Amino acid sequence: MPVNLSVPRPQDLHPVPGVKLGVAMAGIRKADRRDLTVITLEEGTQVAGVFTRNRFCAAPVQLGRAHLAAGAGIRALLINTGNANAGTGEDGRVRAFTTCVALARHLELAPEQVLPFSTGVIMEPLPVDRIEAGLPAALADLKADNWAVAAEAIMTSDTLPKAASRRITLGGKTVTLTGISKGAGMIRPNMATMLSFVATDAAIDPAAMQALVTHAADRSFNRITVDGDTSTNDSFIVMATGQAGHAPLSQFDSGDGAVFREALTAVAAELAQAIVRDGEGATKFITVQVDGGRTEDECRLVAYAIAHSPLVKTAFFASDANLGRILAAVGYAGIDDLDADRIDLFLDDVSVVVNGGRNPAYREEDGARVMKQSEITVRLDLKRGSAGTTVWTCDFSTEYVRINADYRT
Amino acid sequence: MPVNLSVPRPQDLHPVPGVKLGVAMAGIRKADRRDLTVITLEEGTQVAGVFTRNRFCAAPVQLGRAHLAAGAGIRALLINTGNANAGTGEDGRVRAFTTCVALARHLELAPEQVLPFSTGVIMEPLPVDRIEAGLPAALADLKADNWAVAAEAIMTSDTLPKAASRRITLGGKTVTLTGISKGAGMIRPNMATMLSFVATDAAIDPAAMQALVTHAADRSFNRITVDGDTSTNDSFIVMATGQAGHAPLSQFDSGDGAVFREALTAVAAELAQAIVRDGEGATKFITVQVDGGRTEDECRLVAYAIAHSPLVKTAFFASDANLGRILAAVGYAGIDDLDADRIDLFLDDVSVVVNGGRNPAYREEDGARVMKQSEITVRLDLKRGSAGTTVWTCDFSTEYVRINADYRT
Repeated sequence: MPVNLSVPRPQDLHPVPGVKLGVAMAGIRKADRRDLTVITLEEGTQVAGVFTRNRFCAAPVQLGRAHLAAGAGIRALLINTGNANAGTGEDGRVRAFTTCVALARHLELAPEQVLPFSTGVIMEPLPVDRIEAGLPAALADLKADNWAVAAEAIMTSDTLPKAASRRITLGGKTVTLTGISKGAGMIRPNMATMLSFVATDAAIDPAAMQALVTHAADRSFNRITVDGDTSTNDSFIVMATGQAGHAPLSQFDSGDGAVFREALTAVAAELAQAIVRDGEGATKFITVQVDGGRTEDECRLVAYAIAHSPLVKTAFFASDANLGRILAAVGYAGIDDLDADRIDLFLDDVSVVVNGGRNPAYREEDGARVMKQSEITVRLDLKRGSAGTTVWTCDFSTEYVRINADYRT
Repeated sequence: MPVNLSVPRPQDLHPVPGVKLGVAMAGIRKADRRDLTVITLEEGTQVAGVFTRNRFCAAPVQLGRAHLAAGAGIRALLINTGNANAGTGEDGRVRAFTTCVALARHLELAPEQVLPFSTGVIMEPLPVDRIEAGLPAALADLKADNWAVAAEAIMTSDTLPKAASRRITLGGKTVTLTGISKGAGMIRPNMATMLSFVATDAAIDPAAMQALVTHAADRSFNRITVDGDTSTNDSFIVMATGQAGHAPLSQFDSGDGAVFREALTAVAAELAQAIVRDGEGATKFITVQVDGGRTEDECRLVAYAIAHSPLVKTAFFASDANLGRILAAVGYAGIDDLDADRIDLFLDDVSVVVNGGRNPAYREEDGARVMKQSEITVRLDLKRGSAGTTVWTCDFSTEYVRINADYRT
């Protein structure tokens, strides 16, 4: 059961001028499901992305990076579910490229103007023939208001489609941001079997695109974890068609640029959190906030030690305020000179640990009340500096094991 | 169900001259179970230990380190289960010391000659009164052939007691090594809620003790992982009474010293592996061997990425040769310049991946056959150097979650 997540309503997902989406049933792994998605972009669209740092990055990721670097102007995205085309070596790259060639031929583009994305089982050959055969139907389906359908077509073990949309005003013009994401397991910073595509009709200086996307990713997809596994295929892509008619944005620290960057980051965070809310077997949405560190890096170490600990996550599942497990995770996070006798810990607003020891005023029933909630914030103060960070995760249930033990069967 | 582990037979656990053990029911957390253990050592016994590196190390660990450093000559160990005396701050240290004082008084020792150990729930006050009240019964029970009973008395969530014993000959004299261990969850390198006590009547140069213990720990307890959580209380203690009558050993690279060090390491490895075999919810014992690395450190990174991955561990539980999950873990292990296109992967003797891609000769049924076994070796060749390492772990089952979600209830 996803945690406080519902199916996005199509009417809430604003079309983005310059962007069309089409889906088809290509029978890539299962019959009778939409598993192939094409997104087309008007000429002049600026595209940038952030990809998995996994050294075993999948063939489509290798190709996507190369196509972005080629600079020919990305005009289409080709996304399949059911097969990740990962761990497939040179043959996988050839297959991914072949699908780009096929779509490019339909659209009269160069293959380098297509970005390929795959998600699903690893180490099985991509069925190029089925994808090629599915393309005409996907292209016939292209329309601007197909975001909800596409959100569903890119799912794997997701239980619900994920999408977010908002409108802002820049220089008197309405600017739209709409995006979709998928992923439910193998989620962790530096991306995961996580795909997300956000489009906007904002006009962005090409030179500023990459930094903008990295900024948003670092505050969204790079802050979530379900099980600590980082996948081979993760990609977060931002497409800016520039059709809104405002003056192009080139700086983002103030004014319209800041408004836009904040909106983009908020959409990315909503899409990222949706992945955690739909985390495999998740019953609770956990925010881990670490303050008082010397650096953001050390706060991140501590936050992820907590967010990855199976003992902490099973305690959340059990609604058990077993705070010792949280402290133990803090202790092994890797800060060598951490003074455990200074640490404060809160569950929502309940003070649990003061100066490394149990708060004498803490009552088990207060902790138990918070632990029963579907959304919980664990807040830690290291009291050794002024840096802080936040990550989002979910609990760890018997259902998680069942899902992942059965995945291929 | 522990994996290929059985209750040690008392007659297989050789007494160690100079060492006695006594246990008692002190009602520390549960009634009617042996939860208090005293080990006494003849004067002149050399004692050294390795402790958790968790910054939240428990009160008894802090005290134990200090007592060893004091150099007064350790003459007794006091071990309780049911309460870890961790996350208890200054009050916890006072309580731990109070129990040392109580035992020292009975034995006419200084408190610094006692090492305290606690395991069980964290962040609850150690019931000093019950421990004090239990001491006379434990002392009345002291005998040399009590190892099997003590192995049981130190258990927490262990399903079986763990012990190992062997005899070697040094300079014509029989030398005995006998040890016990406990722990089943929260296990990971740098120790875990893992306690182990090994005694020998070998004579060891005091100056050499610490290096000897570290050597054995690095090849045993620091190579196991159940769930990646490192506890606050882990301790591995070696006690050498020197009563065997051979010439004291001061170097261990050859001759009798090497024979002894190998025996000690083997006993430690057996005790460490017993912990994994009894890992919470374990159904399989997995050896992860990484070869061909540039350094042992990078091999360890890769081995632990595999051994900690919930996706890999649930696939073992499901007997699913989902090898992509193993490759994905290799990819995010943290070796930035890893060439994924060179990696070979084996499941026991079955070649699965060659040069980063699926071996064309690999058949799913061969992988499936290995995955059904109760003991599996995953072997990886990074083909970039000559370093290697091995770690031991277990699979990840629905039972693990059940155990850890119910632990305090």
